Amino acid sequence: MSEAYRLATVEGDGGSRVVVERKGLAVPLTALLEPDDLARLGGAPKDLMPLLEEWPHWSARLAERMAGKADRFGDAAIPADTLSFLPPIALPRKLICIGANYHDHIAEMPIPIVPTYPYSFLMSPSTTLRGSGAAVEKPSMTRMMDWEAELAVVIGLRCRDVPEESALTVVAGYTNFNDLSARDWIASRPPIGVDWVQHKNFDGFGPIGPYFEPAKFTGDPQALPVRLSVNGVTKQDSSTAQMVFGVAAVIAHLSRIMTLEPGDIIATGTPAGVGHGRQPPEYLQPGDEVRMEIGNLGELVTPIV
Amino acid sequence: MSEAYRLATVEGDGGSRVVVERKGLAVPLTALLEPDDLARLGGAPKDLMPLLEEWPHWSARLAERMAGKADRFGDAAIPADTLSFLPPIALPRKLICIGANYHDHIAEMPIPIVPTYPYSFLMSPSTTLRGSGAAVEKPSMTRMMDWEAELAVVIGLRCRDVPEESALTVVAGYTNFNDLSARDWIASRPPIGVDWVQHKNFDGFGPIGPYFEPAKFTGDPQALPVRLSVNGVTKQDSSTAQMVFGVAAVIAHLSRIMTLEPGDIIATGTPAGVGHGRQPPEYLQPGDEVRMEIGNLGELVTPIV
Repeated sequence: MSEAYRLATVEGDGGSRVVVERKGLAVPLTALLEPDDLARLGGAPKDLMPLLEEWPHWSARLAERMAGKADRFGDAAIPADTLSFLPPIALPRKLICIGANYHDHIAEMPIPIVPTYPYSFLMSPSTTLRGSGAAVEKPSMTRMMDWEAELAVVIGLRCRDVPEESALTVVAGYTNFNDLSARDWIASRPPIGVDWVQHKNFDGFGPIGPYFEPAKFTGDPQALPVRLSVNGVTKQDSSTAQMVFGVAAVIAHLSRIMTLEPGDIIATGTPAGVGHGRQPPEYLQPGDEVRMEIGNLGELVTPIV
Repeated sequence: MSEAYRLATVEGDGGSRVVVERKGLAVPLTALLEPDDLARLGGAPKDLMPLLEEWPHWSARLAERMAGKADRFGDAAIPADTLSFLPPIALPRKLICIGANYHDHIAEMPIPIVPTYPYSFLMSPSTTLRGSGAAVEKPSMTRMMDWEAELAVVIGLRCRDVPEESALTVVAGYTNFNDLSARDWIASRPPIGVDWVQHKNFDGFGPIGPYFEPAKFTGDPQALPVRLSVNGVTKQDSSTAQMVFGVAAVIAHLSRIMTLEPGDIIATGTPAGVGHGRQPPEYLQPGDEVRMEIGNLGELVTPIV
């Protein structure tokens, strides 16, 4: 799609800033905006949150600005591969993860049942999110650090009790998410149930990005290739078509429990190929490099240290 | 302790504001501060978060200001029972809950084992927290809405890997928390484990407050009476002495997994007397009123609608 663009939050002079990327070239968002736009945003955005708070407006506005100023893209453009990425949204209100949501992953773990509804848990946004390229420390507490490539949905509309049929209308866009996991605490299967804080919430266990792609460019979220490699060796190679509950069903379910808010991130589960499900099991060690990409969302790179 | 005071976030003209309360009388925080204090805070605080971000400084400063201006307390004072309370912290970065942490509660549920470490789960701060007096809607999805009186710890220092011996030094203070629960999804005990999102994260399921008490006035957090009533009938009447893991052990455990940050709230579990553990079981219905109080933290009132 020739008009397609992606957004990212990157390190800039004296802080973070938002850039717009197309075909490997990026410009600062501010170069595409007019003074009235910046006034409405309260100044140059430090991340995507100010855009997401009024996403229907900004989605339309960006399309206009991109069309009218295509010629300026060349002037101010910098190669996207020189950017230092940060999480697209610095501090979302919620980071919700769906567990056991790919048929092939349920089989490999093995998980005792296919869930009859989207099973979810929460992560701490302030301490887990890391941008592409940022190193993640292997905690000394875990000997079983694992990867999980996941399609992350970014909410663009405050909503409650959304019908599945119209649920995709509240999606602003998509990004990559690597739901890093410490398998030590599911291997022991405590009778009280999985401890999702110990399993998922170590500092840095939520690499995300590099790009946010507006939903209108992503197409069908249930037809995206999902790939993850460790040190260049492919480990996950599947499709979002394998999801037990698709993006729309997940949003419908969660919005019956809690109000979803702009900028909320929903990670939709991982396909087969995680380390814990392999024979013999494989786990991440300092020095490893994990790379993942879903559809056209760009490559999320995570060195383990 | 004659110098003891408590803080609260309340509705004020054109927004929220912070008040200081002593012996049933409250004054706006701004009435006790000097211009240099307000400059450091970036203006009149809308909730406790700006104070908690630099709690060691503000704890000492408030003591000074309270001592020096005791006479002004009478002039500007308003009766505390006329305040409209909001959550003390509008949007903490994390809301962490400890499950199965009172010996008497583990016995009544029954929970299959006494945990060998503090078992925790996360809640969504932006959608669950409600102030004292705020009504909470019984979701139509649950037929088994239950109460849980809990001591909530408020973190006052960014920290990681805190030794249990010194863990109480990172506590800014305490408040009441009613960890409302939908027992439908633990009654069915899904093989994958308890779904803490469905169990705990309905909108409004986190009544909190009314007061934040600085830790230096609370004394030993393991020697506080815990009481909860429904429609005036006592349901929970225990003590924080019944905790399996005390406040210091909980902080030490969590800080080995994740960085704790100022304003983070840790709810430390509930004692016996919840509705689900009673014979026959009792659940909350629209029209009920729940009241709870721990130590000297004030009464947290929650009408169910």
